[in-house]
Amino acid sequence: MQYTIQQIAEALGAECQGETSLMIERAAEPSDAGASDLAMAMSPKYAEALSNGSARAAVLWEGADWQALGLAAAIFVPRPRMAMAGITSMLDGGQGVEPGIHTSAVIDPTAELAEDVAIGPLTVIGARARIGKGAIIGAHCVIGMDAVLGENALLREMVSIGARARIGDRFIAQPGARIGGDGFSFVTPEVSGAENARKTMGDQGGARAQSWLRIHSLGAVEIGDDVEVGANCTVDNGTIRNTSVGNGSKLDNLVHVGHNTRVGEDCLLCGQTGVSGSVEIGNNVVLGGQTGVVDNIFIGDGVIAGGGTKILSNVPAGRVIMGYPGIKMETHTDIYKAQRRLPRMARDVEALKKAVFKQPPSD
Amino acid sequence: MQYTIQQIAEALGAECQGETSLMIERAAEPSDAGASDLAMAMSPKYAEALSNGSARAAVLWEGADWQALGLAAAIFVPRPRMAMAGITSMLDGGQGVEPGIHTSAVIDPTAELAEDVAIGPLTVIGARARIGKGAIIGAHCVIGMDAVLGENALLREMVSIGARARIGDRFIAQPGARIGGDGFSFVTPEVSGAENARKTMGDQGGARAQSWLRIHSLGAVEIGDDVEVGANCTVDNGTIRNTSVGNGSKLDNLVHVGHNTRVGEDCLLCGQTGVSGSVEIGNNVVLGGQTGVVDNIFIGDGVIAGGGTKILSNVPAGRVIMGYPGIKMETHTDIYKAQRRLPRMARDVEALKKAVFKQPPSD
Amino acid sequence: MQYTIQQIAEALGAECQGETSLMIERAAEPSDAGASDLAMAMSPKYAEALSNGSARAAVLWEGADWQALGLAAAIFVPRPRMAMAGITSMLDGGQGVEPGIHTSAVIDPTAELAEDVAIGPLTVIGARARIGKGAIIGAHCVIGMDAVLGENALLREMVSIGARARIGDRFIAQPGARIGGDGFSFVTPEVSGAENARKTMGDQGGARAQSWLRIHSLGAVEIGDDVEVGANCTVDNGTIRNTSVGNGSKLDNLVHVGHNTRVGEDCLLCGQTGVSGSVEIGNNVVLGGQTGVVDNIFIGDGVIAGGGTKILSNVPAGRVIMGYPGIKMETHTDIYKAQRRLPRMARDVEALKKAVFKQPPSD
Repeated sequence: MQYTIQQIAEALGAECQGETSLMIERAAEPSDAGASDLAMAMSPKYAEALSNGSARAAVLWEGADWQALGLAAAIFVPRPRMAMAGITSMLDGGQGVEPGIHTSAVIDPTAELAEDVAIGPLTVIGARARIGKGAIIGAHCVIGMDAVLGENALLREMVSIGARARIGDRFIAQPGARIGGDGFSFVTPEVSGAENARKTMGDQGGARAQSWLRIHSLGAVEIGDDVEVGANCTVDNGTIRNTSVGNGSKLDNLVHVGHNTRVGEDCLLCGQTGVSGSVEIGNNVVLGGQTGVVDNIFIGDGVIAGGGTKILSNVPAGRVIMGYPGIKMETHTDIYKAQRRLPRMARDVEALKKAVFKQPPSD
Repeated sequence: MQYTIQQIAEALGAECQGETSLMIERAAEPSDAGASDLAMAMSPKYAEALSNGSARAAVLWEGADWQALGLAAAIFVPRPRMAMAGITSMLDGGQGVEPGIHTSAVIDPTAELAEDVAIGPLTVIGARARIGKGAIIGAHCVIGMDAVLGENALLREMVSIGARARIGDRFIAQPGARIGGDGFSFVTPEVSGAENARKTMGDQGGARAQSWLRIHSLGAVEIGDDVEVGANCTVDNGTIRNTSVGNGSKLDNLVHVGHNTRVGEDCLLCGQTGVSGSVEIGNNVVLGGQTGVVDNIFIGDGVIAGGGTKILSNVPAGRVIMGYPGIKMETHTDIYKAQRRLPRMARDVEALKKAVFKQPPSD
Repeated sequence: MQYTIQQIAEALGAECQGETSLMIERAAEPSDAGASDLAMAMSPKYAEALSNGSARAAVLWEGADWQALGLAAAIFVPRPRMAMAGITSMLDGGQGVEPGIHTSAVIDPTAELAEDVAIGPLTVIGARARIGKGAIIGAHCVIGMDAVLGENALLREMVSIGARARIGDRFIAQPGARIGGDGFSFVTPEVSGAENARKTMGDQGGARAQSWLRIHSLGAVEIGDDVEVGANCTVDNGTIRNTSVGNGSKLDNLVHVGHNTRVGEDCLLCGQTGVSGSVEIGNNVVLGGQTGVVDNIFIGDGVIAGGGTKILSNVPAGRVIMGYPGIKMETHTDIYKAQRRLPRMARDVEALKKAVFKQPPSD
């Protein structure tokens, strides 16, 4: 996995200059870079640190003076993070899953595996499961019966996929991701205090204490192409229909997607975001870390929620929101600024009352 | 796993009409339903979609005109979600764990397993662990030494149960649930800044920086009957006594229950809720998604917390709360409404000050 | 694992009185304690419950009248929680991992294991991984290729450690902890709406909907000595450099640490805390449960954040913060108090407007 500067530049569709036949073994931060490393110095701020390391080659911003930076060769990129996608993809050392099926794996004889799959130690594949070509499945995974996994999947260790899940091509799952747990769905024989409190916004009414009956999940999980799910993430089975995640969507670590929820295409659900059941999320939605979404609402296309937002009602397409409850980010900012002045305003109001009404200030 | 309309109606204690000998293979949403499916159309809103599918039978609300909906048979239910509990329980296809003990499982010779248990591939059962009759334990589980699991347990794949845990009957655990990790309990040799800041609500005092000493967990986890824990959920061991979860309580995915905490009976802890250590939670408590509970407080019977609530002090029985910090939901709503008017109110106060005191508005 | 009162007192460096040759088998809460238990009764409040149990020995506060409490022997400690660290460490019964390497473990022939390690059933150790002496590794763990684990590690079951991770001595990992998942890092070909919204605090600009390209993680995770990570916790690989956790830091259950982030020494990250990518956290920082930290900021030494704090900007050293967004705890408290009076203040302002401007109150 060595490349010349020339090869890397070509893969990125970028310009390069200097000793473009220089061999690169890995990427490095400017101050850590050795002589066979490619230093990532895409802005003048990062380039300053080049002198602390011993890089001979770097990725620089367009128009950078590579010779003045003491380099032997350079690649020039207009959008640094895009270049990172290309470079890191080329230099990824992987996790070392060996080709073929490890002898300790437990594969049901009725499972259908493409010929070139790599299956790690102690992985279990259930009855009639189908694994597409090019799949790399790490150690200690469990693929449930009748599950379908498309082509070129990459599963890290300890991923579990429940029975009947249907997953598209190029699926990536980080360690401990859970696809297809049962949905969290319970009901009391009579109307419960929680049901009343939701309707009235606070009043439990006369509901008596009751035990919970379980609603089983008959649906499964359906995942499109090019989806990634993070470490210890959970996507639950639907009740009757399938829970679904659309093409190109990415879920970060410890994200929870409840039963029946539909996540659209090209969404980003950042770390520890929790989406309740029966939510409809459009395309190109970005939910910042620790966002929470109440059940049975919709979130339109292109919505962006700042970190920590608690979404308690429908959000129209294109809106940028923040807060608890989540509201337009600019409204939130206005309220927040006014809040910071609130203790002073309280004193002002007391002074006004005293002046206008000649009354003593309240406690 | 096929039933007639008649059999399903009888199991639900519900009325049915039409061709009640019709055979049903699965449940379906009205628009997806085929000729051998039972369409779930429990309200007029859902029934509209029946014409998009080809259902011949449906579950309807009481008094619905099934013939006008073009059906051959119908079941009528007064409380739709209750009917869902019964129907989904009948039609659950399961995860396919085979009867008996898989040859790849690693069972300690001193473990006591009831004769009819089903143990999946590569599951590990420790010394002196006892597994009750009817247990279905999925692939890749680990049951610790001296743990006790009651009758009719259902463990999905990759569940771990620590040493000495005691769990009642009909326990359900979703993939990756962790019962019996060690509690998170550390102490500094001298009083720490964090201890001071808690006491003073903000002042660390003169405490010096120190390292943390570990308090080990000698207690275990004790779980009642009819408890369910969600995917990647964590319930920690107690320090001296056991952490406990009462009969009938249900924990959703990624829920955390800290050491020494006692969760009462018939509680619902929704997705990503986190309960710190040494909390006393009563019976029939419902904590919405992403609720947080500070340590060493109590939450009375029947408390309901809206999603995202951060509970920072004791909550009396029966209260409905919301917010950060969690307060009565109606107070929270009042404050919230006033907050939305806050930017305008700030302008009003400035105008009043100008008019009354003839002073220039502050910045 | 039995000790005399004398032995326990000596290990704690504490004074003891009475029948100090009494044999202790376990620690117990005062009301549960039997005749061979050591009751934990470090304050008068807890000592009251001694009469409900049958303890003959207890740990008491300094100056306590042990004879009046009906005890045969007592240990006196000045700082109860410190004593708990010592006592629980002595009496910890462990999880029963057998010495040696379990025959079902899958150890790569190139892995280097110290002679005295204990490796549980079905654990997988990758190529060239190095495990230091005294390590106890539970069942169902996966240690990636080229990973290094220092001396005296204690891994509970189902822990995974990614390729190339470097971990110091005395590492403790609870069940399901995930070290070295890939970072959550994606980029769109052109500037995205999310990038615009962050810059403008709310305006997506004219960015078109795009798909996400993946930035791979070439870095790994680097962990110091005496670190503990909780159940189902996730620490992601860095992009170019390593993500790092410093000596003595402790992460609770379900904590997330994003790519490139550096956690300093002796920090406590409490349950469900989420730290985004590229955050710099100093030493002795305490983040309460469910704290969230936005990416690319720094948190100075000794910062303390109350539970539920959302940290959206840099925090100077020594500050105690709370709220969403996180601000000085005392400012937060002032604002919060003013908020509770807000509905009344709104009425006051309306009354003032009416009196001063003779105008009707606004809606």
